[in-house]
Amino acid sequence: MYLELDGCGPSYAQLARAIKTAIAEGSFTPGQRLPPSRALAQELGLSRTTVTTAYEQLEAEGCIDCLVGSGSYVSALQAQPALPVVTAPMLAPPSQYAERATQVRRDAVARMRFDGRYDLQCGNPMTNASLSTIWGRELAHAATYTPPQAAPEQGLPYLREQVCRYLKHSRGIHVPPERVLIVSGFQQAVTLAGRVLVNEGETVVLEDPHYFLARQSLQAHGAQIHLVPTDNHGLITAELPARAPRLIYVTPSHQYPTGAVLSLARRRELLRYAEANQAWILEDDYDGDFRYDSKPLASLRSLDHADRVIYGGTFSKVLFSSLRLGYLVLPAALVKHFVDAKYLCDYSTSAIEQAALAHFMESGGFSRHLVRAVKTLKTRREELIKGLRQYAGARVQIADSCAGMHLVIWMRDYTHAQVDALIALARTRELGIYSIAPYYETPPATPGLLLGYCSLPPADLHDAMRIFGECLDTLDGMSARS
Amino acid sequence: MYLELDGCGPSYAQLARAIKTAIAEGSFTPGQRLPPSRALAQELGLSRTTVTTAYEQLEAEGCIDCLVGSGSYVSALQAQPALPVVTAPMLAPPSQYAERATQVRRDAVARMRFDGRYDLQCGNPMTNASLSTIWGRELAHAATYTPPQAAPEQGLPYLREQVCRYLKHSRGIHVPPERVLIVSGFQQAVTLAGRVLVNEGETVVLEDPHYFLARQSLQAHGAQIHLVPTDNHGLITAELPARAPRLIYVTPSHQYPTGAVLSLARRRELLRYAEANQAWILEDDYDGDFRYDSKPLASLRSLDHADRVIYGGTFSKVLFSSLRLGYLVLPAALVKHFVDAKYLCDYSTSAIEQAALAHFMESGGFSRHLVRAVKTLKTRREELIKGLRQYAGARVQIADSCAGMHLVIWMRDYTHAQVDALIALARTRELGIYSIAPYYETPPATPGLLLGYCSLPPADLHDAMRIFGECLDTLDGMSARS
Repeated sequence: MYLELDGCGPSYAQLARAIKTAIAEGSFTPGQRLPPSRALAQELGLSRTTVTTAYEQLEAEGCIDCLVGSGSYVSALQAQPALPVVTAPMLAPPSQYAERATQVRRDAVARMRFDGRYDLQCGNPMTNASLSTIWGRELAHAATYTPPQAAPEQGLPYLREQVCRYLKHSRGIHVPPERVLIVSGFQQAVTLAGRVLVNEGETVVLEDPHYFLARQSLQAHGAQIHLVPTDNHGLITAELPARAPRLIYVTPSHQYPTGAVLSLARRRELLRYAEANQAWILEDDYDGDFRYDSKPLASLRSLDHADRVIYGGTFSKVLFSSLRLGYLVLPAALVKHFVDAKYLCDYSTSAIEQAALAHFMESGGFSRHLVRAVKTLKTRREELIKGLRQYAGARVQIADSCAGMHLVIWMRDYTHAQVDALIALARTRELGIYSIAPYYETPPATPGLLLGYCSLPPADLHDAMRIFGECLDTLDGMSARS
Repeated sequence: MYLELDGCGPSYAQLARAIKTAIAEGSFTPGQRLPPSRALAQELGLSRTTVTTAYEQLEAEGCIDCLVGSGSYVSALQAQPALPVVTAPMLAPPSQYAERATQVRRDAVARMRFDGRYDLQCGNPMTNASLSTIWGRELAHAATYTPPQAAPEQGLPYLREQVCRYLKHSRGIHVPPERVLIVSGFQQAVTLAGRVLVNEGETVVLEDPHYFLARQSLQAHGAQIHLVPTDNHGLITAELPARAPRLIYVTPSHQYPTGAVLSLARRRELLRYAEANQAWILEDDYDGDFRYDSKPLASLRSLDHADRVIYGGTFSKVLFSSLRLGYLVLPAALVKHFVDAKYLCDYSTSAIEQAALAHFMESGGFSRHLVRAVKTLKTRREELIKGLRQYAGARVQIADSCAGMHLVIWMRDYTHAQVDALIALARTRELGIYSIAPYYETPPATPGLLLGYCSLPPADLHDAMRIFGECLDTLDGMSARS
């Protein structure tokens, strides 16, 4: 008798599976008597106990009947084999949410993987081997004293205190820890805001262009998205809709992706609009830690006297995106709603990582890291700008940006088609540059490019700009001929 | 002039804040001229640059006007002070979701904090100092090689492979890694299942009693909850509703909290019912790792030939609840929907923790830990049962339970009121025992108690049972007199 044991796990389990397979394949037929346990054990070189245990399991599962004094028989009515199954057709549709989610992901910006040497990507933070090691030590330390119970759903008090201290020093935002909620990254912040504040069919205002993942989340949630255009002073508040939205999602300190700073006058208009329309504002300060000017404007949160601003920050850019840690500063009236929603959503965020981060902040490690990172980024930014001026000259207009990890350049003397060709040319030279157009619903009149500078050292950035200039020369040469 | 600097952050920012406060408090009036920067610097013992920078910030914020050659003046129209604000009343209600969430949390089982010496709590896993240290090392190791980008939304392939290997060996579940989704704990699994499968108003079947946090999440989501009673063979499948639910949430291998095992016949009925009604099943195998018998029944997932079972597992019980890591084995037709929902929900789960766990599993550390934990729990369980038999005798009926970290005892010779008194008496003796009644919608006829045994060493469990017996004696003495 041929029974193939698959070598996975205890012998009795392997044997039981093998017999079931044999039954399913028809090697044993219903009513057929199985070999006595002693005989089978001898034949297969197994212990008798193994065989009897396998038979007992099969009997418990209804595959065989063990009749005392008579033997074991394959059952007349067979259980279905416990094997990976043929995919059944989807008989009932999933939820409306699932259908909307499928729709938004189909329409999503396809992120082209690019493995060239000079990838000016935006989105991923700097790789930093020494930070990884330091972070590993913080985690190991936190693991030894963090109790095994889940953290409180609002977040470890230790971390919330550190966040408050940090916000006071670096952003002029003064709130007590009771108003802070720790979230598993900013994406969860958007999810919670949608759940707590927006019913299906209600309107959310976003900037155009915008962070598409936030839009996708809100669209899948069932919100109506109303896009308001931006210019080099950010969201054009004069174009806010007359009909009140429930939520306004903005990136005022450093518009994503254009880099524009929302002017003070517009900040005040936005706050007045929100108060007059009973709307909430979600202020996403995604890279506020990386500033190269000394006088950032006060956040909406700081200027907000009607307590309508939800201020969100993340550690993804300044530490690692792999971490999934962020925070919300909530209006007093919303704290309980958001904490309840967080609790029901995923109970709490990893306690060890929260403790590690809190200690990293308290010990000064976080601010030392920030100072170093800002210094590195500042140098890289300057090198990029220098290279652009040297090799591209007046052919590009550098959008002023005093924060973050990427620059935007506009190219008003070129058509969109030419800029697409430029991107393709650049790829042949192992240079990765990215169009700003996909971030818009209504494409801008002027083509623009995103140039991320966090991933490459200054020398590589210089070379990248030289190559960029050469690609521009090639493009110009082509249009000169045509 | 009195200006109080708060000592937080750069001096210029402190000064700017102090001046704004003074303006808000009326110490400076609109139109009033501020001191020249040199004079103020001298008076406050600051550098002149600090003062001019502070003035520049105030001007940028619109608080003061700097007129060249004339001086700096408090603006006629003042910006609102950037101070913590008085709570504005909630003018617009939050979403229907938020209202439902508030409702369910208000009705929630109040978890009484108990700090007595003999706390037979259920829910929190064992504290294990050596495991914490080992886990810290795994984290530190993973931190050094995990790239900074977010993990793929479906979960690190490394971890998904390890989960598959584990499920094959320990549960007889054979699936490829493509069918596994890593989630941030089982609570997120319930959230995603609700989002993907259930529209508002549609029905979800739960057992009675059940894990209340899952019910709360589904209720807040807007599902109609239909509870089906259980007995000592688990969910009474004969009482499944005629009207098809969208989702059935069950704990078949070890009913929570009664500990009953769903019989094989009922497993088959449940699967037939689900297929006939196009319903999905969420199988929660929350403590399947801790088994004390050698022949567990095949999971619903293993018996499922129509691919309608979503199988969920968690590492909360076997490692730490603080970790927030779990997994789902998905029917082929649902993989993409769940992965999309996970992506939109919180983008991905912490990469370092996934990598640490995958390595811990691959290196054999996880199974070694399991073997030790099962051994410890088995000893504690036996001690508890021995103590119950010795000190409580026939006054309690021990529900057979071959898994997990708690026992259920029934007390058919007592009323609910008597058992409540028993619990109160026990608390006076520093003994924490818990009624099973709050887990039910329809309270059971017979009172029952949950006795968790993972937190205490055998000697303490023996003492706990002695005290329990004495409390029973006291209770019996009281009823003898009345």
